[in-house]
Amino acid sequence: MANEFIYGHWAVMEALRAGRRQIDQLLVTETIETKGMVAEILATAAERGVSVRRVPRRIIDDLAQGANHQNMALRVNGYPYANVDDVLSLAQKRDEKPFILLLDLLKDPQNVGSLLRVADAVGVHGVIMQERRGVAVTPSVVNASSGAVEHLNIVQVTNLVQAMRDLKSQDVWMVGLDIGQNVAPIDKTDLNMSIGLVLGSEGEGLRRLVRDTCDLLLVLPMRGSVASLNVATTGAVALYAAWQARGWQGWAHA
Amino acid sequence: MANEFIYGHWAVMEALRAGRRQIDQLLVTETIETKGMVAEILATAAERGVSVRRVPRRIIDDLAQGANHQNMALRVNGYPYANVDDVLSLAQKRDEKPFILLLDLLKDPQNVGSLLRVADAVGVHGVIMQERRGVAVTPSVVNASSGAVEHLNIVQVTNLVQAMRDLKSQDVWMVGLDIGQNVAPIDKTDLNMSIGLVLGSEGEGLRRLVRDTCDLLLVLPMRGSVASLNVATTGAVALYAAWQARGWQGWAHA
Repeated sequence: MANEFIYGHWAVMEALRAGRRQIDQLLVTETIETKGMVAEILATAAERGVSVRRVPRRIIDDLAQGANHQNMALRVNGYPYANVDDVLSLAQKRDEKPFILLLDLLKDPQNVGSLLRVADAVGVHGVIMQERRGVAVTPSVVNASSGAVEHLNIVQVTNLVQAMRDLKSQDVWMVGLDIGQNVAPIDKTDLNMSIGLVLGSEGEGLRRLVRDTCDLLLVLPMRGSVASLNVATTGAVALYAAWQARGWQGWAHA
Repeated sequence: MANEFIYGHWAVMEALRAGRRQIDQLLVTETIETKGMVAEILATAAERGVSVRRVPRRIIDDLAQGANHQNMALRVNGYPYANVDDVLSLAQKRDEKPFILLLDLLKDPQNVGSLLRVADAVGVHGVIMQERRGVAVTPSVVNASSGAVEHLNIVQVTNLVQAMRDLKSQDVWMVGLDIGQNVAPIDKTDLNMSIGLVLGSEGEGLRRLVRDTCDLLLVLPMRGSVASLNVATTGAVALYAAWQARGWQGWAHA
């Protein structure tokens, strides 16, 4: 069992709630105040039969490698990746057209975490990321996603282009978010279809072959003085545009 | 002249390009490589008649207070805030209905910077922020906005509610982004009107009186397991929704 330590209130809470990982122990600092969110987390840990141990703060500082751990770290096994079939099965089970997010070599855990939080909010059936040279679902990504990853199907593939081709052969449209003048604005296309939204890396954008494998390229309009947006912003707007095109399917208050 | 140091490639570049501040000197590290973006920045500094001085790295480390300065710091006077009339004049000059962003006590420079970058991208006429207890346009906000603030009208007010009332008396609708079940989803309202989008602080949301002063409250739908989105994400999606309702007005490729 590859152990790791998840830290931060929401990350720990969602790992406990989702219950998809083997959970070993919850470490908290000796001086933690057990009220509010902390009290809720401790109650959830107790419900789940997870033991709690009080340790000196410097131990948790070390485990979280200097990140803002909010006085707690949860010892768990590695992130339980899904596979592409899990993603398509979830779509089928919900009786929805596949709605997938694909990440091409994103590097920044904050961006990836932020995108995964939005992916959860709009109800994607899964997220596909390339295994090498991109970010994996590390504790800092779990933290940046506010624990959303604990509920998502996330797939690591060795070759993103091959995964795109496989999905295309199953009638999922690959829609890349790109920049440039010869690309259609995002609202000129009906996104209410079986779709994989593909985002390129910070700075570099989509790799050539990934771009060429897309069925469709879309651009987010921009009129300001600064020529680009952060990939997490672009992705959030695109994911919401796609979900809106589906009529907020699955939203309890729709 | 209240001096401060702007750091990071895009922040320095946009401050030079916008030319709205008094610029004293550009400091670069002794070992900086003058190619690519750095070469462009040095050329722009030369065009603007800004002197460049090579200094030991630790000096810039100190000036940037440990932030990622990318080997440069620009000595400038304080951020040139605008006033509400500047904002309304810009709308009039462009012959557009006012499109304003209002920030209620946001605390995190990264969130504020990210929102201001989007505000620039969608072409708001100005941003209004409360002076105390919220973030001001510090060098870290300039950096997080990729320099977008250098081109924006940003107004600091002592009382946000009073500013909202003044705008309402000039027929600008105040639209608050909120959470909760009794709030209309964002696409059920025509946002193609004179509008001020109001965002609440991280964690707390809109203050009671700010909320009560809004003409309209809107919610971003969410269906995931995690109950909230970051304010920077919510704001980005809302700003794009409002601009889309205006038919991407001002976008060169529309």
